[in-house]
Amino acid sequence: MTNLGIGLIGYAFMGAAHSQAWRNAPRFFDLPLDPAMNVLCGRNAEAVQQAAKKLGWNETETDWRNLLQRDDVQLIDICTPGDSHAEIAIAALEAGKHVLCEKPLANTVPEAEAMAAAAAKAAASGIRSMVGFTYRRVPAIALARQLVAEGKVGTIRHVRAQYLQDWIVDPEAPLSWRLDKEKAGSGALGDIGAHIVDLTQYITGNRIAEVSGQLETFVKERPVAASHSGLSGEAGTERGPVTVDDAAIFLARFTDGALGVFEATRFATGRKNAIRIEINGSNGSLAFDFEDMNLLHYYDATEPAETAGFRRILATEPVHPYVAAWWPPGHLLGYEHGFTHQAVDLVNAIAEGKDPAPSFADGLQVQRVLAAVEDSSTSRQWQEIPE
Amino acid sequence: MTNLGIGLIGYAFMGAAHSQAWRNAPRFFDLPLDPAMNVLCGRNAEAVQQAAKKLGWNETETDWRNLLQRDDVQLIDICTPGDSHAEIAIAALEAGKHVLCEKPLANTVPEAEAMAAAAAKAAASGIRSMVGFTYRRVPAIALARQLVAEGKVGTIRHVRAQYLQDWIVDPEAPLSWRLDKEKAGSGALGDIGAHIVDLTQYITGNRIAEVSGQLETFVKERPVAASHSGLSGEAGTERGPVTVDDAAIFLARFTDGALGVFEATRFATGRKNAIRIEINGSNGSLAFDFEDMNLLHYYDATEPAETAGFRRILATEPVHPYVAAWWPPGHLLGYEHGFTHQAVDLVNAIAEGKDPAPSFADGLQVQRVLAAVEDSSTSRQWQEIPE
Amino acid sequence: MTNLGIGLIGYAFMGAAHSQAWRNAPRFFDLPLDPAMNVLCGRNAEAVQQAAKKLGWNETETDWRNLLQRDDVQLIDICTPGDSHAEIAIAALEAGKHVLCEKPLANTVPEAEAMAAAAAKAAASGIRSMVGFTYRRVPAIALARQLVAEGKVGTIRHVRAQYLQDWIVDPEAPLSWRLDKEKAGSGALGDIGAHIVDLTQYITGNRIAEVSGQLETFVKERPVAASHSGLSGEAGTERGPVTVDDAAIFLARFTDGALGVFEATRFATGRKNAIRIEINGSNGSLAFDFEDMNLLHYYDATEPAETAGFRRILATEPVHPYVAAWWPPGHLLGYEHGFTHQAVDLVNAIAEGKDPAPSFADGLQVQRVLAAVEDSSTSRQWQEIPE
Amino acid sequence: MTNLGIGLIGYAFMGAAHSQAWRNAPRFFDLPLDPAMNVLCGRNAEAVQQAAKKLGWNETETDWRNLLQRDDVQLIDICTPGDSHAEIAIAALEAGKHVLCEKPLANTVPEAEAMAAAAAKAAASGIRSMVGFTYRRVPAIALARQLVAEGKVGTIRHVRAQYLQDWIVDPEAPLSWRLDKEKAGSGALGDIGAHIVDLTQYITGNRIAEVSGQLETFVKERPVAASHSGLSGEAGTERGPVTVDDAAIFLARFTDGALGVFEATRFATGRKNAIRIEINGSNGSLAFDFEDMNLLHYYDATEPAETAGFRRILATEPVHPYVAAWWPPGHLLGYEHGFTHQAVDLVNAIAEGKDPAPSFADGLQVQRVLAAVEDSSTSRQWQEIPE
Repeated sequence: MTNLGIGLIGYAFMGAAHSQAWRNAPRFFDLPLDPAMNVLCGRNAEAVQQAAKKLGWNETETDWRNLLQRDDVQLIDICTPGDSHAEIAIAALEAGKHVLCEKPLANTVPEAEAMAAAAAKAAASGIRSMVGFTYRRVPAIALARQLVAEGKVGTIRHVRAQYLQDWIVDPEAPLSWRLDKEKAGSGALGDIGAHIVDLTQYITGNRIAEVSGQLETFVKERPVAASHSGLSGEAGTERGPVTVDDAAIFLARFTDGALGVFEATRFATGRKNAIRIEINGSNGSLAFDFEDMNLLHYYDATEPAETAGFRRILATEPVHPYVAAWWPPGHLLGYEHGFTHQAVDLVNAIAEGKDPAPSFADGLQVQRVLAAVEDSSTSRQWQEIPE
Repeated sequence: MTNLGIGLIGYAFMGAAHSQAWRNAPRFFDLPLDPAMNVLCGRNAEAVQQAAKKLGWNETETDWRNLLQRDDVQLIDICTPGDSHAEIAIAALEAGKHVLCEKPLANTVPEAEAMAAAAAKAAASGIRSMVGFTYRRVPAIALARQLVAEGKVGTIRHVRAQYLQDWIVDPEAPLSWRLDKEKAGSGALGDIGAHIVDLTQYITGNRIAEVSGQLETFVKERPVAASHSGLSGEAGTERGPVTVDDAAIFLARFTDGALGVFEATRFATGRKNAIRIEINGSNGSLAFDFEDMNLLHYYDATEPAETAGFRRILATEPVHPYVAAWWPPGHLLGYEHGFTHQAVDLVNAIAEGKDPAPSFADGLQVQRVLAAVEDSSTSRQWQEIPE
Repeated sequence: MTNLGIGLIGYAFMGAAHSQAWRNAPRFFDLPLDPAMNVLCGRNAEAVQQAAKKLGWNETETDWRNLLQRDDVQLIDICTPGDSHAEIAIAALEAGKHVLCEKPLANTVPEAEAMAAAAAKAAASGIRSMVGFTYRRVPAIALARQLVAEGKVGTIRHVRAQYLQDWIVDPEAPLSWRLDKEKAGSGALGDIGAHIVDLTQYITGNRIAEVSGQLETFVKERPVAASHSGLSGEAGTERGPVTVDDAAIFLARFTDGALGVFEATRFATGRKNAIRIEINGSNGSLAFDFEDMNLLHYYDATEPAETAGFRRILATEPVHPYVAAWWPPGHLLGYEHGFTHQAVDLVNAIAEGKDPAPSFADGLQVQRVLAAVEDSSTSRQWQEIPE
Repeated sequence: MTNLGIGLIGYAFMGAAHSQAWRNAPRFFDLPLDPAMNVLCGRNAEAVQQAAKKLGWNETETDWRNLLQRDDVQLIDICTPGDSHAEIAIAALEAGKHVLCEKPLANTVPEAEAMAAAAAKAAASGIRSMVGFTYRRVPAIALARQLVAEGKVGTIRHVRAQYLQDWIVDPEAPLSWRLDKEKAGSGALGDIGAHIVDLTQYITGNRIAEVSGQLETFVKERPVAASHSGLSGEAGTERGPVTVDDAAIFLARFTDGALGVFEATRFATGRKNAIRIEINGSNGSLAFDFEDMNLLHYYDATEPAETAGFRRILATEPVHPYVAAWWPPGHLLGYEHGFTHQAVDLVNAIAEGKDPAPSFADGLQVQRVLAAVEDSSTSRQWQEIPE
């Protein structure tokens, strides 16, 4: 089988998750290309070598530009903070490398526009690109999309979505790059709000047309992190300003007229990674909570009232998306499996010569929604999302 | 409308619940007879007068035998401890009064046999009797029965039932009459185990044929109660023996071959009144928990796997048993409503000249199951329940 | 004991609920005054007489003005549609009658202002008034308020509240007075949105300072109802316009800086009466869903991480608000019990010479929030709520 | 780092799960020895080569005896049906290989005794052995054990455990080796009942002393499988007898006096892999359901009644067993992670020169409990478990 050489940039939280995906995808799925974990890239030579050994990569680089020259790398997987996405992704596409880029696509709309343009140009030469809205590949979510597409929900009236975390409720939690606008672009809005914007548009098949939003930074100053990695870090004695939002709330109107209510926050005490989505339509409803990620709840309004009720679908049956490759019914999947499914879908798209979804254009559109929320928070008015 | 004069004996926990039923039944249901709260009976004259005023009864008696003489009493409602059930009920039936008797029907099988015989004899003269297995009248339970009768569950394979309370986990909780074999007959077995024996037989439409059981008294001595009422009481300094079981567990075989697993306990720390019943059949399953008493969970095995799942039926729709008389969908009913439904069903049966269910014969059969569990706990063998 | 003569106006859904409250309150609670169900009032003489018999009222009137003249009426209980609240309530207060008025207080802010002014004036003479935000008296809700007041939640960051129903998802569901702006003032916003505005302000102890909202009428024309009562009705052949909102969504900022997200809808397919409230604070969180109305979920952020988790508090312990009067732990209460508690609190306030809460001023403030949501929906900007 | 060469026998369901464990353990945990996926063994040369390629093993063998001769194999991992466990495991231990053996340890008590004896003898020479009760390594389960050990539950009164599946409810589901007594030893009892026997003994730290049980085969004849693998297979036209139990129920008494109620079935329609365990003690309670495997519910009876309630602990915090190696809080683990944790614990024990748990002696004791249940089902009496 032909190899698909992977060059992964970044080895923190997302780097580990993507490594797990590349490692396991071919063990459960029949792939048309064999993903080869060839090169891990990071700026600190010693650290990247340790990470490569741990995560199972063959070689390392300290300058991502070198990756673009290597013949053993056909796909660049970008797991760095958002401020470097545009530069790397555009260069990689121009160098003829397929690109998988973590979300949010970029820190600004202009960056995302440049990336989408580069992706469109590259696609003409058969170079593929994808943005990493991984949660689409949770089987229960993919099933939700499928049920909507099958008409089981009917005309959608309501979308309510929350992404609730609590990891910085403590005002002494240190500044990390995720609290720095330069690195991260935004806070809860771009980090987790981006996911529920993508997921609700994906599940409903509709786009958000306009928003009215509000951002808030509850804790405006924090200890400067002495060191950090992933979502944690240790506090130093110095303090610095938090330059991103702790929470974002917004109303939305979808193109088909549905009403949306969104909330993304890092201050929902006791909620660790609660992605909650509920869709109400003329024929039925769907509800999902990532804290029970193997479940999809489905209400069929055409049932007789005697036995109508939300069905607790344990999305672990072979007929459910992605599940047949794994374990018997009732043997649950976890967070990381979405990354494996993402790798599978991307490899298949590359082999089949098709553009995978979500595309950079999809990532750009999400970015425009996020920007409109920010604008609306300042203007205190509804903002339309440009087509 | 003709009055149906009620004479209620006992005014503690059950007396209050029955009073609430008689008070409210005609306010929500169209009854063919008008229940008149004529006489409350208790041994302590002052206490019974206070209770009558509080609970809304017109007059009082201190000797239940007087009730049998009164022309304004057509129905005797027995809410006393189990040791007096037989004497009162038989006398009442012989006096031509309809009888509603709290469960368990009696403290011993011979007593229950005498009661059932008296009830059968009285029925020939149009005198009705009923034993108070109230939980049958929770809408979600009645719906479960209905779905089984409609064949939605198919051949039943498994019955699992638990009645879990924790009100005497504390070894300093005082002795009450419910812990005294003379008064109560048995402990968890008769008080709450009786309910799940009745409910599972009611829902499945089958009877328990044999059992293997085990009784246990975890705390063998307790403070003697200085005073008591209902489920509470205050501890004195003296200590006395607990003469009933704290917990009862048993396996069962139903007449149709289904396997049953039962557990009744007052030592399930944190569970307050958790009646849990789950039925698995060839076509589907049902699950109920009284801690969410307005819900019935139903799995339809004939659904396609894509969308099969336990349906969370909120049993508050007008099509659900008893519900149309009450509030709009989603406006929950509570514990006491089962008593109201019991009163309704009894009044209707009396007016229609039909024998209501559960009959004293049903109560006797439950008593035989309980006795077999006790015997089995001693013999350490399976015990058959006589027909 | 002195009687407190009640005159109830209206005998549909709310009239039945209030009747149940007056009937039962003195049976479970020790009241300082004895509520006497003296007069039921409605325009149709025959219908009101039937209702009085059914619901247990002694006499009837067909003109509410007559109630104000009667010496056997000390309290006017207003259960009519919102368009008549102001006229009746003001007249009653001026006639020296205590007033309990169903929510929303009025259909317009000016009406509500006049009512609040009348209430303030009457209070000076010892005449009490209260608006019927009954859900405050659900024990789990009252417990939530108590936990916030005890500081268990700390500084509140997030409030999310939904009131979800689905009774008019079917576009053929007929027009009822609740869909007529003249009668009802507004749709989901005033009918159910009012409750979550009140509840979140009550629980948090803070007020909503500004809102950004959006109203929507999904089904703009419906069959004219041939007849109607309560929430149901039968469709005729004629069609008429729906003049109120089917759904209302809005963002809010509370006076203490907390962010609020609200949603009230009659189009949440499969949700029957789901009042969901979640509060996140610096020390903990609370969550409630009326579909499990006996439960309050509480997260204590000061717990060690090993055992921290949302506690499922079954609010049926004697220490919980209102519960001691009822049944043992685990014996659930239902929808109607909130009305009983409301009656109890009102009678106590009258006897103690205190102004009960929520006052007409509280009702006015809720009305202002609702009006601001409507204004915002038109202006597409944030609207401040006047003090 | 020194390699620990693995030889895995079997490559169906369990073989795939163990492969996933060996592949991933060193990627997330710091191991003192490096597990090398050296040899996969199976009888069909072509099939085992395909499997090795898919699952990532370096070489293959078709006779397990060859594994014992190989210097690149230090650990034999036995994933075959139970009838071959004893022969392979004993030979491997005698050949000086560490052994991991899938559960149940053996098909009969004598086999298990021989294995335990061999393990004890081998342990004297530093050869380690372990039986694969993987569910012990689900973080929420390991946390349950820890909380019991910390005294948070107090004296245990009740253990209730169910292992519910439904994969052969359909009477046309074909015979597989799991329905053949020769291969599998027993049915639901040994396959899944073994797990809840082990888990409850592990969590409580106590042993089952005696049992009263009942086995049942609901469907006595099935189509002979044309082919089979894992839990599935296709039906042929021939029919054959089911020689194992479809369901097993039993009561138990633990050595410390606690009462146990157990149920293992493949006929719980709608339940896919529901391992439910609830423990009630004098100080608190624990509840677990594998269908929500990242959750542990804990009730602390020392809490004030106002806020006492079952805590929904999301066992994904770094302080929870095994979790720190994985993802941030709220990012769920799945079924397969238990196998990885098992590999980690075994490698650590080997490196540290300690005997891992559960030992073959533990497996033997479970086998004795299962045998006592079978005996009891025949004798219809309680059976003691020999020490």
